[in-house]
Amino acid sequence: MDNYYAPGRNHLFVPGPVNIPEQVLRAMNRNNEDYRSPAIPALTKILLEDVKKIFKTITGTPFLIPTTGTGAWESALTNTLSPGDRIVSFLIGQFSLLWIDQMQRLNFNVDVIESDWGAGANLEVLGSKLAADTGHTIKAICIVHNETATGVTNNLAALRKLLDHYQHPALFLVDGVSSICALDFRMDEWGVDVALTGSQKALSLPTGMGIVCASPKALEASKTSKSVRVFFDWKDYLKFYKMGTFWPYTPSIQLLYGLRTALDLLFEEGLDNVIERHSRLAKATRLAVEAWGLKNCTQKEEWFSDTVTAVVVPSYIDSSEIVRRGWKRYNLSLGLGLNKVAGKVFRIGHLGNLNELQLLGCLAGVEMILRDVGYPVKLGSGVAAACAFLQNTIPMIPSRI
Amino acid sequence: MDNYYAPGRNHLFVPGPVNIPEQVLRAMNRNNEDYRSPAIPALTKILLEDVKKIFKTITGTPFLIPTTGTGAWESALTNTLSPGDRIVSFLIGQFSLLWIDQMQRLNFNVDVIESDWGAGANLEVLGSKLAADTGHTIKAICIVHNETATGVTNNLAALRKLLDHYQHPALFLVDGVSSICALDFRMDEWGVDVALTGSQKALSLPTGMGIVCASPKALEASKTSKSVRVFFDWKDYLKFYKMGTFWPYTPSIQLLYGLRTALDLLFEEGLDNVIERHSRLAKATRLAVEAWGLKNCTQKEEWFSDTVTAVVVPSYIDSSEIVRRGWKRYNLSLGLGLNKVAGKVFRIGHLGNLNELQLLGCLAGVEMILRDVGYPVKLGSGVAAACAFLQNTIPMIPSRI
Amino acid sequence: MDNYYAPGRNHLFVPGPVNIPEQVLRAMNRNNEDYRSPAIPALTKILLEDVKKIFKTITGTPFLIPTTGTGAWESALTNTLSPGDRIVSFLIGQFSLLWIDQMQRLNFNVDVIESDWGAGANLEVLGSKLAADTGHTIKAICIVHNETATGVTNNLAALRKLLDHYQHPALFLVDGVSSICALDFRMDEWGVDVALTGSQKALSLPTGMGIVCASPKALEASKTSKSVRVFFDWKDYLKFYKMGTFWPYTPSIQLLYGLRTALDLLFEEGLDNVIERHSRLAKATRLAVEAWGLKNCTQKEEWFSDTVTAVVVPSYIDSSEIVRRGWKRYNLSLGLGLNKVAGKVFRIGHLGNLNELQLLGCLAGVEMILRDVGYPVKLGSGVAAACAFLQNTIPMIPSRI
Amino acid sequence: MDNYYAPGRNHLFVPGPVNIPEQVLRAMNRNNEDYRSPAIPALTKILLEDVKKIFKTITGTPFLIPTTGTGAWESALTNTLSPGDRIVSFLIGQFSLLWIDQMQRLNFNVDVIESDWGAGANLEVLGSKLAADTGHTIKAICIVHNETATGVTNNLAALRKLLDHYQHPALFLVDGVSSICALDFRMDEWGVDVALTGSQKALSLPTGMGIVCASPKALEASKTSKSVRVFFDWKDYLKFYKMGTFWPYTPSIQLLYGLRTALDLLFEEGLDNVIERHSRLAKATRLAVEAWGLKNCTQKEEWFSDTVTAVVVPSYIDSSEIVRRGWKRYNLSLGLGLNKVAGKVFRIGHLGNLNELQLLGCLAGVEMILRDVGYPVKLGSGVAAACAFLQNTIPMIPSRI
Repeated sequence: MDNYYAPGRNHLFVPGPVNIPEQVLRAMNRNNEDYRSPAIPALTKILLEDVKKIFKTITGTPFLIPTTGTGAWESALTNTLSPGDRIVSFLIGQFSLLWIDQMQRLNFNVDVIESDWGAGANLEVLGSKLAADTGHTIKAICIVHNETATGVTNNLAALRKLLDHYQHPALFLVDGVSSICALDFRMDEWGVDVALTGSQKALSLPTGMGIVCASPKALEASKTSKSVRVFFDWKDYLKFYKMGTFWPYTPSIQLLYGLRTALDLLFEEGLDNVIERHSRLAKATRLAVEAWGLKNCTQKEEWFSDTVTAVVVPSYIDSSEIVRRGWKRYNLSLGLGLNKVAGKVFRIGHLGNLNELQLLGCLAGVEMILRDVGYPVKLGSGVAAACAFLQNTIPMIPSRI
Repeated sequence: MDNYYAPGRNHLFVPGPVNIPEQVLRAMNRNNEDYRSPAIPALTKILLEDVKKIFKTITGTPFLIPTTGTGAWESALTNTLSPGDRIVSFLIGQFSLLWIDQMQRLNFNVDVIESDWGAGANLEVLGSKLAADTGHTIKAICIVHNETATGVTNNLAALRKLLDHYQHPALFLVDGVSSICALDFRMDEWGVDVALTGSQKALSLPTGMGIVCASPKALEASKTSKSVRVFFDWKDYLKFYKMGTFWPYTPSIQLLYGLRTALDLLFEEGLDNVIERHSRLAKATRLAVEAWGLKNCTQKEEWFSDTVTAVVVPSYIDSSEIVRRGWKRYNLSLGLGLNKVAGKVFRIGHLGNLNELQLLGCLAGVEMILRDVGYPVKLGSGVAAACAFLQNTIPMIPSRI
Repeated sequence: MDNYYAPGRNHLFVPGPVNIPEQVLRAMNRNNEDYRSPAIPALTKILLEDVKKIFKTITGTPFLIPTTGTGAWESALTNTLSPGDRIVSFLIGQFSLLWIDQMQRLNFNVDVIESDWGAGANLEVLGSKLAADTGHTIKAICIVHNETATGVTNNLAALRKLLDHYQHPALFLVDGVSSICALDFRMDEWGVDVALTGSQKALSLPTGMGIVCASPKALEASKTSKSVRVFFDWKDYLKFYKMGTFWPYTPSIQLLYGLRTALDLLFEEGLDNVIERHSRLAKATRLAVEAWGLKNCTQKEEWFSDTVTAVVVPSYIDSSEIVRRGWKRYNLSLGLGLNKVAGKVFRIGHLGNLNELQLLGCLAGVEMILRDVGYPVKLGSGVAAACAFLQNTIPMIPSRI
Repeated sequence: MDNYYAPGRNHLFVPGPVNIPEQVLRAMNRNNEDYRSPAIPALTKILLEDVKKIFKTITGTPFLIPTTGTGAWESALTNTLSPGDRIVSFLIGQFSLLWIDQMQRLNFNVDVIESDWGAGANLEVLGSKLAADTGHTIKAICIVHNETATGVTNNLAALRKLLDHYQHPALFLVDGVSSICALDFRMDEWGVDVALTGSQKALSLPTGMGIVCASPKALEASKTSKSVRVFFDWKDYLKFYKMGTFWPYTPSIQLLYGLRTALDLLFEEGLDNVIERHSRLAKATRLAVEAWGLKNCTQKEEWFSDTVTAVVVPSYIDSSEIVRRGWKRYNLSLGLGLNKVAGKVFRIGHLGNLNELQLLGCLAGVEMILRDVGYPVKLGSGVAAACAFLQNTIPMIPSRI
């Protein structure tokens, strides 16, 4: 009846897709509806207003596109840029690599600034490029806020400062797939022109909705962009926004209601509290890694990610075996090392609708797996380190005080 | 708690998204999963095999793309054709119009064969064009199998015959959005090169999966197509198919399990029985329309659609008012008239996981609405005509005999 | 995968269990919870207040017992009466028969007033008994408000008047299983001492909750009742009510949340509008029966039930065959004739969260079945009669105007 | 929207109701059905066969009663015994106390053998009583297999031996509420006459089904039992079993399908593997308690319960505060100490569809709570002890090897 059945809950700690809260599952447990009835536009209208809050934008225009993060990338690029346009982008891991690959295949002229996997975006090099670019040949800076492959968070505020310092008009496009709703993200304050995320990440929904938010400057750019696009064309959305019917093609009714509930939960907890919770869970994870005597793939503290931790394993261990074993013995789903760090790191995703005891179960599981694969971890050490921190920092649950 | 609450079930008779059977809702009521675990590739592998059956193809290669029908169109075009390529396409209603619009915006050279809204594709004109095209400048014929706006089904077998007659090598691309799984569709027999549908139509799933199937010839064409594409690029899928991990980006776990159940239901009923059921429901609907003294928007019987019936209302009635009234008074969702036929027709979708008594409830509702808006229908007349036909043709439910 | 699969929705028209609205299914789609946490008592407290509204009582005390209607009967009797107590009860159909059987097995002294199946309670005979009972040997009058087997609704207001007329102190116990939340029921106004219903009837929930409401007089009686009882003993509930933990044993978490939503839906529609809707659906059904040339099992209009219609078939037809055929061919579930009227009547349940088009689909189905079994009904006749009435009476859906 | 919302999953470790697996939630996510159609009897028939396996009986007759454990007790007693009958029963904790209270209120003559709370049933005293009872005045021995309040498991095999030794014909009635499906239970081998459990315990369903299984000897006794009963009367079930319709009153459709899936999961894992898993989780819990320097409420190892562990807290701590804090700060639901041990113990339920990492999350949570309330536990100590044991004993998941 269930091909890979195991008793108890699956412990889902990949950095996406993440655990869906029961409230959202309930909201999505429904038949289809006519998306041309008054109900769906009314729902959409409020969603479009509310979704801006997760970007911390007042001036942005959001698009809820039936696609994945990859599609959201394409939407961001093709609406704002024209073939041949020079883009500066940062290669720091698998997802920045894939985005750059997409840029190249879309015929943009990508100026890649590469870092070690584990390091953040090299903003110094960007600075030099901006300084040199007096002719403003750079049309856009594309950056992954949080590189999911290595657990590296880039400093977007610093990037904005650089652009301001050089008074450079380049568009500022941000992949916030594994950051938005989990890390502090400030679209308006940081002057981000396009920000995007996917439903299956910190929003804790199923996959299927790419959420893209465009600044007025990005919208303006979209009017002259020569990139060929139809499905991802914002123009069609804007046309239907104006008509008040909102949808150029059929949305997922279930995801709309799911998003409604996901936002309700976020707002009930408070977005800043959600970010704080992610910070707390991440810190606890890093303390456990340290207690295990293992290294964080992220090279410097300033880049530590609060949504995913990539753990480097000793060279005599294949990190894929850790992931396999988690699944085969403990019903624990961890993230594989990807590409350059395949076999070298495993990843603990700690994003989305998650709490401390869930994480501690995962950490205990990792300890047992480490033993299984021959790493002489002291059982309980990571959990102890995490608990010591958490017991001092977990707040009371406001609704239950 | 529910902004547009009404007691009892919503009677959903738009031609998509359609009613989701309870079995599918159940299958989709689940948490996310790691799509890189062995479970999802194993599930996907069988889905890819089984989904070929709904296209009646053995040689085709299917793609389950996280997108809508519009995206599936784009996938079909950009993978097989290059900018500037000449496409012959038929404009017979709103959806063929939108596809043609897409073709034009994607920079193809579209040779449009237009018919009245309500008529089918003009194959004679196509014949002339094929006859004249000794240089094979026509790279593809694009046709909507079933035009959802007017309830017109085109004759694909005849189109194939024409191509064969002229030994024309053009690719044969078919929008089967409102046909596949409901109308007789034979990809291999008819030599269709790309066929596509969307999950929310006859498959009776939520929106979010574009299902595209490519013939070997289409796959071959994709190797040389110069259309810019990344998200919709088959190449990425094929690469992951080869690796056995199947997904270039995150799929919707829920839709995969939903598709599994949707196919199980289709196969349990038997695809030909499903087609027969659609034929029966459609015939019943047309008999009701006739009994009401109203005209079918479809001009000739050969084009009658078995998935949607567009009903022409007298000129003194605004068909939008019929749809509005259905929703406001009877909890009945009917399809609006679109574009050229806006205000002139309303549409009854009779596709997907639907049975006779559901349809009869809808027909009774339409009768009352017609009275509401001032059309002097004889109450019960349409239902009587439909019942007279159905009572003679409904088979026993095999599992219950 | 589904042993009795049939495409489309099952048309559920038995008089219970009835259709569950999607909103309620959603509310119940949840994990268990600790029923000793603050959440469940808080939820229960409000439910106990709100559930009184469906009884139209201010002074009553409700009990939400994990049981069925049969258990609710037992709760009503054993808490208020002692073995040997004289009860006057009315035998008018299968459910009144079963309740009387229970009374006898519980060792009460049952004085049965019998009517034809199809007639209501004979209040004249009751009057005589009350008149004669100057010594007040009659401890309780037990009556089924709506006899589900024959579609007969008794006049409780008239019964109350009789009791008042004779100033008789007998307890007034009412089975409201197929009436409360659907028919006009006024506990306080009619001086009902115990009223009860089951979750799977007009409340449109799954089976599993017996809802019993006791007047102060009934509560007083419970203090001296000598009937042996533990599971059904109100005393345990009252003890936990006082403690504020509410539950002497584990409740169904899912049914509590389901009840919350069921009440929300009832209150949103308005209880009087719900009753009005039942009246409308019932009238439409009776008009159809008449149009078919068939007889209502209910002998007089004053007893017509607004929740179930028992239709008498011609003697050459076995009504069970009608029910069987509904299920085997039309995915329609009708109610069998029970006991004395087995084979002679079939029943259409029209209670719970149901609307007009659902009913019309059912009626159309019944017409086809009648033909199937050899009754020469004019197809469309019943639907036409029902529509003619409904089209004039269905109100606009308030939330959609 | 959710009165007591907290992010992430609730960690449910009360000894019932327990976590419902997603597969069961899915199975129960459905509309009502006519329970008189062929589908429900067919389903019930197989359920009745399959449910016997969880009792390890071939000769038993099961009853699936719409009630709770308390109702199941009443069913066991009233069907087999007559008022005044002498019952020997063991008072060892809150649930045995409640059952004895029920026996007394049902007018049985209860001969109570009391033990300290934390000790098991005193079989020596039983032996004396049996030895003395040459006249066979003892009609039944009633015992709680696993006392949920103190985490004490009684030795039923030893009890059977005593009965055999004295060739005593007393009925052997067992409350298996927190044992069956989790602890080794052998109805036939141990000559148990009535065994019972509730759906919300090790079966991991919602509350609402009392499952009672009667030996041939118990069935025979039911024919002469003079206890007044209707709702709980087996006779009605047996009558409907014979007719093949199975249900004397309306069952919960959802619980029937839920039970089907719950049994499927149990059988897929293998009942003995399920028992082994419970033993493993319990051992891990006890090792943690020991590592924390706390005492198990259970006085001797022979009585250790594999489904619930009652942990004694130091006298300066109120155990209720531990439970409250779990809920208010960690979204962890622990069991309160009840009655005599209120304030003195808290309970960790480790039964039902649960796995090791879930338990470890709970144990980590308990460690933090202990600190919160002022007990100087070494953080990580319990988890380490549990992990050390688990890492050596957890089997690979068979479906994933």
